[in-house]
Amino acid sequence: MSKNLKVAAIQQRCTPDKKTNLLSTETKIIDAAKDGAQLVVLQELHTSQYFCQTENTALFDLAETIPGPTSNKLSALAKSLNIVIVGSIFEKRATGIYHNTAVVIESDGSIAGTYRKMHIPDDPGFYEKFYFTPGDAKTPNESNTRCESGFKPIKTSVGSLGVLVCWDQWYPEAARLMALAGAQLLIYPTAIGWDKNDKDDEQQRQLDAWVTVQRGHAIANNLPVISPNRVGHEPDPSGHTDGITFWGNSFICGPQGEILSQADSSNEKNLLVDIDMERSEEIRRIWPYFRDRRIDAYDDLTRRYID
Amino acid sequence: MSKNLKVAAIQQRCTPDKKTNLLSTETKIIDAAKDGAQLVVLQELHTSQYFCQTENTALFDLAETIPGPTSNKLSALAKSLNIVIVGSIFEKRATGIYHNTAVVIESDGSIAGTYRKMHIPDDPGFYEKFYFTPGDAKTPNESNTRCESGFKPIKTSVGSLGVLVCWDQWYPEAARLMALAGAQLLIYPTAIGWDKNDKDDEQQRQLDAWVTVQRGHAIANNLPVISPNRVGHEPDPSGHTDGITFWGNSFICGPQGEILSQADSSNEKNLLVDIDMERSEEIRRIWPYFRDRRIDAYDDLTRRYID
Repeated sequence: MSKNLKVAAIQQRCTPDKKTNLLSTETKIIDAAKDGAQLVVLQELHTSQYFCQTENTALFDLAETIPGPTSNKLSALAKSLNIVIVGSIFEKRATGIYHNTAVVIESDGSIAGTYRKMHIPDDPGFYEKFYFTPGDAKTPNESNTRCESGFKPIKTSVGSLGVLVCWDQWYPEAARLMALAGAQLLIYPTAIGWDKNDKDDEQQRQLDAWVTVQRGHAIANNLPVISPNRVGHEPDPSGHTDGITFWGNSFICGPQGEILSQADSSNEKNLLVDIDMERSEEIRRIWPYFRDRRIDAYDDLTRRYID
Repeated sequence: MSKNLKVAAIQQRCTPDKKTNLLSTETKIIDAAKDGAQLVVLQELHTSQYFCQTENTALFDLAETIPGPTSNKLSALAKSLNIVIVGSIFEKRATGIYHNTAVVIESDGSIAGTYRKMHIPDDPGFYEKFYFTPGDAKTPNESNTRCESGFKPIKTSVGSLGVLVCWDQWYPEAARLMALAGAQLLIYPTAIGWDKNDKDDEQQRQLDAWVTVQRGHAIANNLPVISPNRVGHEPDPSGHTDGITFWGNSFICGPQGEILSQADSSNEKNLLVDIDMERSEEIRRIWPYFRDRRIDAYDDLTRRYID
């Protein structure tokens, strides 16, 4: 593994047409590879508009298997460009079982691993609990022959990737478990945005909170974070709301939470950053949090609440 | 409990003389109370200069019992001013057992509870493992007749206080456990500063990381954070280093991590903020992280590392 890893995070606008979206993504991936990217990270559910704005059984038709058409397309790209790609797929695992799944493609086109979103949100306009079964918890003695499960980093030629998805980013537990299992990068494909009926100061607090909590994971775990988010307004198909304005602001930060690059809230963007993969070693020597964790006192983290 | 709670965080410079420091603290507490503060939070080990710059057995003479002279002084102040005070004491628990202890004084002068720092740092200039025994882990069936232990909020007339200390602030586990146990505020008395031999950009990253990781705890737990830090340069008594420049920047933020007030890096300051104690209820309704925690998948948080 090289000391410097060139990483791209792609912030994209999505249309109602899946082919158009994939073609646009393909162009952006090719551009990133031309610019030297060795790892390209796509945003959450990049093949479609964010369909969870409504609960509609017909939309399960958007789901694919893995491998399937989208992962095959990403595999072909990864192989031809000799890069690692993190994609995001609405996965049909079985009839009645669907997941929000990140897929990691190795530079030879093989699937290095998948991660099924563990924390599933559900609030007005983000009806994800209707569509997505939460990822399986890793059971210690279970033999996972087909898919990775739980909070398990995915090993690749560019390092061990702690891939999580969107709502997971509000959970320090998820980042910590990935770090404890050897992740060298934390990665969060995301689709988050504003309800434009919220006041400006509330919108600003929400965006700041989103960036800050993830920078916090970088700091607490001494790891870089890569977080590509969707951009652009998407209408609510039901017409009940004014839709979602996805706030972009994709960013990459280093292991002290320092912003290395950040997109704006209205434009598509390929963020390109050289990440120093030896920096975490330095930081964990000056701020050795892992040395001092009170594992004798953390049992209650597995409780819902302490009444 | 009132909707608005007026809180003061006191950022103070310390001299080599304990009496001078306590007198200065007393003046600042009285000022804060005059300004309407109902809760006053002091910085870590406010009665002395930061003695952990060297390992010196003579310095155990600085330690006190609780109750003891300093806690008695704070009790008298709390009672006469009718306020709650969070102080920080180098505690002698027994011969050979010392703790870095936060003490919470109720407005009637009684001791509402204590918290013994759980995570103890040790790096050049911060030799805390020499002085402080880590706080006891809470043992489920243990009867804690005298002191609170583990990550247990302290109940007061102004709310349930999640009091932690300095190095604890780098551990999301600590903040989460306090929140799960019903804390309404997270509180971090602190003594952290720069080695002025570090480059400016490194110093800036360290300060930013310190603020950001705590704002992250506010966000992840939907709770306000109060974090008073020491300010001013203190020499290294051993002469081995150039001492520590404590970076101040004490701050109070709300449950979305939004900064409500922040001090600078060179001056003493009483930060005074009205905290809306009903805001966490609102925030936990729009961003209900606690609903979706994957307690079935967090077991490995009690492991040192997953090899």
